[in-house]
Amino acid sequence: MDFPGGHILSIDQFDRGDIDRIFTVADSMEPYAQRRKLTKVLDGAILGNMFFEPSTRTRVSFGSAFNLLGGEVRETTGVENSAIAKGESLYDTARVLSGYSDAIVMRHPQAGSVAEFATASRVPVLNGGDGDNEHPSQALLDLYTIKKELAANGRSLDNFRIALIGDLKYGRTVHSICKLLTLFKRVQVTLVSPTELKMPEQYVDQLQSAGHTVVETDQLEESIAKVDITYSTRIQEERFASRDEANLYRGRYRLNQAIYTQYCEPNTVIMHPLPRDSRAGANELDNDLNENPNLAIFRQTDNGVLVRMALFALVLDVVDQVDRSAREVAWYTGGRLTQ
Amino acid sequence: MDFPGGHILSIDQFDRGDIDRIFTVADSMEPYAQRRKLTKVLDGAILGNMFFEPSTRTRVSFGSAFNLLGGEVRETTGVENSAIAKGESLYDTARVLSGYSDAIVMRHPQAGSVAEFATASRVPVLNGGDGDNEHPSQALLDLYTIKKELAANGRSLDNFRIALIGDLKYGRTVHSICKLLTLFKRVQVTLVSPTELKMPEQYVDQLQSAGHTVVETDQLEESIAKVDITYSTRIQEERFASRDEANLYRGRYRLNQAIYTQYCEPNTVIMHPLPRDSRAGANELDNDLNENPNLAIFRQTDNGVLVRMALFALVLDVVDQVDRSAREVAWYTGGRLTQ
Amino acid sequence: MDFPGGHILSIDQFDRGDIDRIFTVADSMEPYAQRRKLTKVLDGAILGNMFFEPSTRTRVSFGSAFNLLGGEVRETTGVENSAIAKGESLYDTARVLSGYSDAIVMRHPQAGSVAEFATASRVPVLNGGDGDNEHPSQALLDLYTIKKELAANGRSLDNFRIALIGDLKYGRTVHSICKLLTLFKRVQVTLVSPTELKMPEQYVDQLQSAGHTVVETDQLEESIAKVDITYSTRIQEERFASRDEANLYRGRYRLNQAIYTQYCEPNTVIMHPLPRDSRAGANELDNDLNENPNLAIFRQTDNGVLVRMALFALVLDVVDQVDRSAREVAWYTGGRLTQ
Repeated sequence: MDFPGGHILSIDQFDRGDIDRIFTVADSMEPYAQRRKLTKVLDGAILGNMFFEPSTRTRVSFGSAFNLLGGEVRETTGVENSAIAKGESLYDTARVLSGYSDAIVMRHPQAGSVAEFATASRVPVLNGGDGDNEHPSQALLDLYTIKKELAANGRSLDNFRIALIGDLKYGRTVHSICKLLTLFKRVQVTLVSPTELKMPEQYVDQLQSAGHTVVETDQLEESIAKVDITYSTRIQEERFASRDEANLYRGRYRLNQAIYTQYCEPNTVIMHPLPRDSRAGANELDNDLNENPNLAIFRQTDNGVLVRMALFALVLDVVDQVDRSAREVAWYTGGRLTQ
Repeated sequence: MDFPGGHILSIDQFDRGDIDRIFTVADSMEPYAQRRKLTKVLDGAILGNMFFEPSTRTRVSFGSAFNLLGGEVRETTGVENSAIAKGESLYDTARVLSGYSDAIVMRHPQAGSVAEFATASRVPVLNGGDGDNEHPSQALLDLYTIKKELAANGRSLDNFRIALIGDLKYGRTVHSICKLLTLFKRVQVTLVSPTELKMPEQYVDQLQSAGHTVVETDQLEESIAKVDITYSTRIQEERFASRDEANLYRGRYRLNQAIYTQYCEPNTVIMHPLPRDSRAGANELDNDLNENPNLAIFRQTDNGVLVRMALFALVLDVVDQVDRSAREVAWYTGGRLTQ
Repeated sequence: MDFPGGHILSIDQFDRGDIDRIFTVADSMEPYAQRRKLTKVLDGAILGNMFFEPSTRTRVSFGSAFNLLGGEVRETTGVENSAIAKGESLYDTARVLSGYSDAIVMRHPQAGSVAEFATASRVPVLNGGDGDNEHPSQALLDLYTIKKELAANGRSLDNFRIALIGDLKYGRTVHSICKLLTLFKRVQVTLVSPTELKMPEQYVDQLQSAGHTVVETDQLEESIAKVDITYSTRIQEERFASRDEANLYRGRYRLNQAIYTQYCEPNTVIMHPLPRDSRAGANELDNDLNENPNLAIFRQTDNGVLVRMALFALVLDVVDQVDRSAREVAWYTGGRLTQ
């Protein structure tokens, strides 16, 4: 895609070169996100962080990413009566709001809404999640994390092994990972779920058409024995008819340090899109994994800031100017740098 | 009025010289709002954007205007339990909040509340709408838009023709326009409404006392045949006893491209305070007008940013310093500049 | 305590030297809070202002304090569905959110939650109030105000007289004041409350162990006759079984100008943690005191900004750099400076 001025609506718009470009720019953002340097390259720019549905961490992550580039953030947090309730079209909303900012992140409960909004926007629009449709920055941060974790173990996105675990039927993140994996080569994918929550056939087909090996199973232990990455998900409770039905599956696949030690190869990376359900009955990833250095779940959310900074820098066309405006950080950063 | 340190509470406080001053400053803000230049004249200043009633676009417009001058924004979005619920007076709230910022925008559901608040504030207060009483920045952006649209057709605020259409009884914006028009000369005003929703007599009297021509009618087509501006409004549903009663009038005056072509003079400007109701039963302004270059509704909201920047610059007394601190914009602005 | 990189969780963590240090730094913030100078010492830093329970003034005060040091603020206002509702632990929330900012202020309805959160945070955490447990910045601003008001009358935190008035059983602020007073010497404390709402014994014991004189009474007038400071509180209605029960005590101790003139020594300082209940039935401090120069309640909230600026400057270790980056303020500040 042509990044400057473009919209980020779906992972389908990226080819492998685009992914490489985003990840290279994300790498270059690390000194700023870690506060080893600071940049004001977007000083004077305004982000419209428009969340028509609440999502604290995605909203704050996008906002902080924009701040880290030097820009300002105006936002809505999803609980206000909006003009939409008075019968305003997304076209009108987009025309109006795009007059207030230099880029817009939009989250909205309705699938397809962000793309419709983008057609009328005068500034780049980034999809912050539109219902069960797309959440491209989450998909990118997952893939970016996989890439970095593999690299730390001397491997790459071509030719590696991953287990996707849990609610594969409703989990948007695992669907997106499958789609993105088709851009790479020779991946062994193990799909671990209850039979009733299997990965939809279309994604299995796409993986196989891309030449990947796919194994489907409902057994956890054997599946995580020979993989580079485990990616666990929570039950998407809101998608089930009742809490009771969701409870049938909750806690079915629990990974803890004992199981990890018994079954996994050393350095098997543990991922999860978060939030993980830490209540006794769920516990997809036990808290006793918190000291395991292969637990990558907080590196995932940290990487989210890098990926979002990269997307802003690309669509606002300032990638080449970031380092030129770099300055020293003047305040205490000890806690962050020792991580 | 004396702008530096003053409050902006009501359009009644402006004489013609004040209006001219605000509009001249608004004109000078255009390069900044269009991102052809950037200024940091309010770098270090804080706006308290205090919305005790939700209004996404007004809130974001004020906030962005302050950001465009280089300032920071702290805000409340109207959904929190406030100290007011614990019996705090507006006097106390104002004394406290004015210690946190350099200027305050306040929206509040209760008529007169913002003026009461202002008496105790130590910093300039701008009324962002107090119930059905006043919303002066909306009135100013409407008049500013009328001025600019007329100027583009070689006319001025003295000696022009306007049709105000729809719910003239409850529409706060059309009342404000009538009041502001009394500052100018020789305006022909056509008031188009159902008999039950006629313009209150006091506003008609004011227009006539100012020497303007006023025609009242319930017919749309003939009324828009010989005017420079049409200004449509939605039914103020929240002011009716029931949704059913509001529905009696909803959709009574619909303007679309076919009607426009058949009845209007070329270059007749189409305005609306937004949001327009785009549902099938309402549709005051049809979507097929979106490509009509005389549709000025999004220029109105864009002008709102200019007017609000002007008000901030005036009450904080930085008008003369804006251009001195001007800098280049470093990021992609293509989508905006080609509008 | 060792401030750089530290958490501010409880007043119990401070010794007298810490208090002195905080207040000295707070003093040095006054030119910035009063807009006589501006600083950008935290330019590029991000505050995560995480309010999981609404509190407009505390939230805005912290946010403005961070802005006044030049930093940016990302925030949540307490009305969103958070990941916590999906079963996320405070540990996870802290690990994630601390990746987005350089410091975090957290308010949460559950006692102890902020301290638990801090154990997992990678950046300094400031307690913005955790249920009925602690609200250390409020306690510090009260004590800082007492110190400044005493100093204006030639006295100090050693050897002065204070009356604490109202709901002493449930009022968190008066408990904190008692704890802080144990760091000083020879204070005469008069505790004025209905018998049913007496100060809990543990606080009385602490005061006496510190060598202070304590008198308990249910009579207002005689108690305020010979003190340097009166500190009134509202009934903590939310802590009573019913509104009716709270009403038994509401309005029991009303201070107004007539009572003040009749009973108090000249220059007796009037304090209140705010909001004061200005409804007719309550009225702990009558509005006719508003012109009394000894009414310090708005100086309290102004001092809150100074104290919060000081805490940020200390934990982020920029105290010595603030003045070095000082600049002139360019905008209108007349209303503020004439206070």
